[in-house]
Amino acid sequence: MTDRNPYASGEDSLIARYFKPLATDPGAFNLVDDAAILQASDDDIVVTTDAIVEGVHFLSDDPPDSVARKALRVNLSDLAAKGATPAGFVLTLALRAADDTWLTPFARGLGEDAGHFGCPLLGGDTVSTPGPLMISITAFGRVPPGKMVHRSGAKPGDRIVVTGTIGDAALGLDMLRGGAATTALADDAAAKQMLVGRYRVPQPRTALARVVLEHASAAIDVSDGLAGDLAKLCAASGVSAAVDAPSIPLSAAAAALLARGAVSIETIVSGGDDYEVLCAIPEGSFEAFAQSARLAGVAVTSIGTVIAGTSAPKFLDVQGREIPLPRLSYSHF
Amino acid sequence: MTDRNPYASGEDSLIARYFKPLATDPGAFNLVDDAAILQASDDDIVVTTDAIVEGVHFLSDDPPDSVARKALRVNLSDLAAKGATPAGFVLTLALRAADDTWLTPFARGLGEDAGHFGCPLLGGDTVSTPGPLMISITAFGRVPPGKMVHRSGAKPGDRIVVTGTIGDAALGLDMLRGGAATTALADDAAAKQMLVGRYRVPQPRTALARVVLEHASAAIDVSDGLAGDLAKLCAASGVSAAVDAPSIPLSAAAAALLARGAVSIETIVSGGDDYEVLCAIPEGSFEAFAQSARLAGVAVTSIGTVIAGTSAPKFLDVQGREIPLPRLSYSHF
Repeated sequence: MTDRNPYASGEDSLIARYFKPLATDPGAFNLVDDAAILQASDDDIVVTTDAIVEGVHFLSDDPPDSVARKALRVNLSDLAAKGATPAGFVLTLALRAADDTWLTPFARGLGEDAGHFGCPLLGGDTVSTPGPLMISITAFGRVPPGKMVHRSGAKPGDRIVVTGTIGDAALGLDMLRGGAATTALADDAAAKQMLVGRYRVPQPRTALARVVLEHASAAIDVSDGLAGDLAKLCAASGVSAAVDAPSIPLSAAAAALLARGAVSIETIVSGGDDYEVLCAIPEGSFEAFAQSARLAGVAVTSIGTVIAGTSAPKFLDVQGREIPLPRLSYSHF
Repeated sequence: MTDRNPYASGEDSLIARYFKPLATDPGAFNLVDDAAILQASDDDIVVTTDAIVEGVHFLSDDPPDSVARKALRVNLSDLAAKGATPAGFVLTLALRAADDTWLTPFARGLGEDAGHFGCPLLGGDTVSTPGPLMISITAFGRVPPGKMVHRSGAKPGDRIVVTGTIGDAALGLDMLRGGAATTALADDAAAKQMLVGRYRVPQPRTALARVVLEHASAAIDVSDGLAGDLAKLCAASGVSAAVDAPSIPLSAAAAALLARGAVSIETIVSGGDDYEVLCAIPEGSFEAFAQSARLAGVAVTSIGTVIAGTSAPKFLDVQGREIPLPRLSYSHF
């Protein structure tokens, strides 16, 4: 549009330059219209929204491409936990200035992820702000009618399963802030880099979406902390849970820090930013679920059992004693 | 959920308290899940996103209920211009603190508008920010498959039509900032109140959506200024336009200010925040369009003609001379 319209505004030029190449879906109309189209289909459209704010969800000196990836991936993580296949997203970008050195890598990272996860940019809004950068994404996925996986639906006896490893992102953030993990891992640059990478660029479990859809009785993505998100799933399902804390999957770096006493299990289960899928799987489906997860290339670990009751989930140590958790998860307010 | 889960976070409590009452659509699942559902249908889903930022799109001392209404209505205005019937919206709210005296009227205004315009809250995200308040809304509408009205499609000979009156919101903002209009209207409290109201609470032309869908060859909502938005419609359509400036519909207050020389026609056509529908109507459909608009209760005015060419639209004065417009519209960058 900018080529044909010499009166295009700076905002239009910015959109045409950085974001039009990402709008590969025909329903995006090359971003020259005021709205996009999600075409009619037999599927339900799953809608999720997550925003990230500079200084809250990412740091001012985080690389712009990783900020873009995180903004999209936290939404893809929600879709995966709902069993939905990505269909596209819209972006709201609040910027202090149209800074080429920031926007170029931001748009590149966003475009690479949009392509990789099959989730094209459909539209958005770019506004100026005197405050911190903020990126708000609304992402869309598709599920067969009525089949979205809910937080509710977990039944006593179901296995509690989590993907990947837990706690790395919280340790990575701690490290970026010069916390306890920094000193303890002073000599291990690779471990530090891995943990920081897990904070900056989550791995949404998109590959597991169809498996979750087929087998899970309930699911949630772990964004605010394993303990808090499990409590939410249990509350929505009207059940409780017993988690065997030593079964919680940890990276080698997190396990080493825990073994040395440099971090506590509380930090690991309430730290947040994991973006793993937490789900309840009926015992009779567990073998089929685990096999499908292996085929999808996603590591899954059974960490406990859904039990009857309405009390908060219990985390039990190796002796079967309950671990006190004063703070279950991150909250903005 | 908060009642059943004693471990709910402050964020969950905030959502349950203020926003759950607005989530009347079954696809919102009472906001207790991570995602919402737009149910499968034969319609295309039209998606639009607009954000408003404190100090940029609204003022710090604007009443919270009017901020909420504006945030939703700027999106409803986009849907109306695309010929779409509202289906729901998701909300991202970036707040400095969970302030009851702000959130209560904000949620009340948002809920009233959601009910009035048939556009229920489906979900969202609430985050903390150290910076200005920001409200980002993604709204959904429905149109029959392939029928969304685009910016492109205007043909030479089509009439250029605009709803309501133009320029009031820009004059209202000028007044809130103590500009020229303030002095000129010092004695007319009712006119001042009307203009400020037009800035704070736009009137989306939702009632005209079906009429636009039936008759318009192209449409856009006037958000950045009549001149700039007409230029965008023309560029997307590969045409130009001639506008008879004296035909542009003005409120009595705006007309009085213009007659007295207190404001210029440039301010009126490039001021922005009008949130009226600007559309191109084929000459042969104009009578039917105008009659349907009357039945819908929306004032429409023919202000010019689409012409061949690719130059910027011309605004002509009462003598047919072109009015120079150095600045067509508001741009963030």
